[in-house]
Amino acid sequence: MTYCVAANLNAGMIFASDSRTNAGVDNIARFCKMRVFENPGDRVIVTLTSGNLAISQSTVNLLMQKARDPQQKNIWNCNSLYEVSQLLGDCLREIQQRDGPYLTQHNIDPNSSFLVGGQIRGEEPRLFNIYTEGNFIETSQDTLFFQIGETKYGKPILDRVLSPATSLPEAAKSVIVSFDSTMRSNISVGPPIDLVVYERDSYKVALHKRLEENDPYLNLVHHQWGEGLKRAFTQLPDMEWRDDGYPRSALS
Amino acid sequence: MTYCVAANLNAGMIFASDSRTNAGVDNIARFCKMRVFENPGDRVIVTLTSGNLAISQSTVNLLMQKARDPQQKNIWNCNSLYEVSQLLGDCLREIQQRDGPYLTQHNIDPNSSFLVGGQIRGEEPRLFNIYTEGNFIETSQDTLFFQIGETKYGKPILDRVLSPATSLPEAAKSVIVSFDSTMRSNISVGPPIDLVVYERDSYKVALHKRLEENDPYLNLVHHQWGEGLKRAFTQLPDMEWRDDGYPRSALS
Repeated sequence: MTYCVAANLNAGMIFASDSRTNAGVDNIARFCKMRVFENPGDRVIVTLTSGNLAISQSTVNLLMQKARDPQQKNIWNCNSLYEVSQLLGDCLREIQQRDGPYLTQHNIDPNSSFLVGGQIRGEEPRLFNIYTEGNFIETSQDTLFFQIGETKYGKPILDRVLSPATSLPEAAKSVIVSFDSTMRSNISVGPPIDLVVYERDSYKVALHKRLEENDPYLNLVHHQWGEGLKRAFTQLPDMEWRDDGYPRSALS
Repeated sequence: MTYCVAANLNAGMIFASDSRTNAGVDNIARFCKMRVFENPGDRVIVTLTSGNLAISQSTVNLLMQKARDPQQKNIWNCNSLYEVSQLLGDCLREIQQRDGPYLTQHNIDPNSSFLVGGQIRGEEPRLFNIYTEGNFIETSQDTLFFQIGETKYGKPILDRVLSPATSLPEAAKSVIVSFDSTMRSNISVGPPIDLVVYERDSYKVALHKRLEENDPYLNLVHHQWGEGLKRAFTQLPDMEWRDDGYPRSALS
């Protein structure tokens, strides 16, 4: 499994991915699911992937191969993130067409999806979610972030914290809490966590950090968040046991 | 969708279910997914269901029809919860065999699963999770609770709070928080919430309560829990932005 999240805020963008892959619980490995394309002063583009690793690696390989030819439309000369998303969707479709039928023949899931976001000079920062069919959607003021992979455990904290005005340090913190919740409930999502922070209109990566399993901040969040949740839970009052429509007896 | 949870603790048991069903977002209805079988002094048995509503209703109907014949093995004369689980599994299989092929012909998911728990005089309290195939598993000291339906959003709080020694009021509180998280993230899970509390060795229902949408306790938990989470989040320190392996620039 995988967990990736990306958010597009007024102050800039956050991208994060875990590094665990598994083809069954007896075949766990580490792969970086994040790729950063940076041409300082011109563009920063980050891709995150979830799903079939061979499909998503081949897709990124194809994208990078195309980038060698400046005559072709490629990730370095696209004029918009929309074009980049189309390009990535086309690469994904090409790989799916090539490999998909062989995988489904063997009951192997060929699905793979991408988040791609960043900023190209002349545009606002943009973030897209590319489905396994190659079509895609974009964030808006109503929907600031996308997740792919094991999305559910880590969604509530993002729902509660992220707004367009959220600062980048606070957004990064919420993403780490989101990963902590996910890793606690799904062992197939695991560190290291790759994290990229991008400041709006900077056209360079502000922070590119790999948080290993023993990372002090990861551990601190893990413990303090657990304690904070327990405190919040303890402070909630108990239910009024007698105040109900079916009083059989009362617990004291 | 549905969300049901049941827990088996030293002090007794908790059962809870939501009441929303949907066959597409344009066809939302309310159905009670909980059934209580109580013979005071002898047994309390509670069933919770998730999945195809026609299948699960028919299964419960068959179970209740069998109960009319005291010559047959039925829910009132089984000597153990294990036998009750077999009986319910058999009913589920019978209904699946009858209706399943017609549903799959029309691409309708015939899956349905049950939680069944309680206590029959002569036994400890027991809790079973009956799969759609009719086979089942039982809780243990390592796994105290089962969930069916939309299980992920509401699992983290149960993982953190529930232990064999958890009191019944505290367990009920954790279940309400678990429902609050689930309802916040999945609109197809909704109130009213049916809640049953059973005290060990009492052989009668201690509390059987329906929490409607405007229930004061449900609203109180909703608001106070949200505030408690935000407080816990605010108290977490920000990441040290400069303390990383890839220092490009630093955010202040």
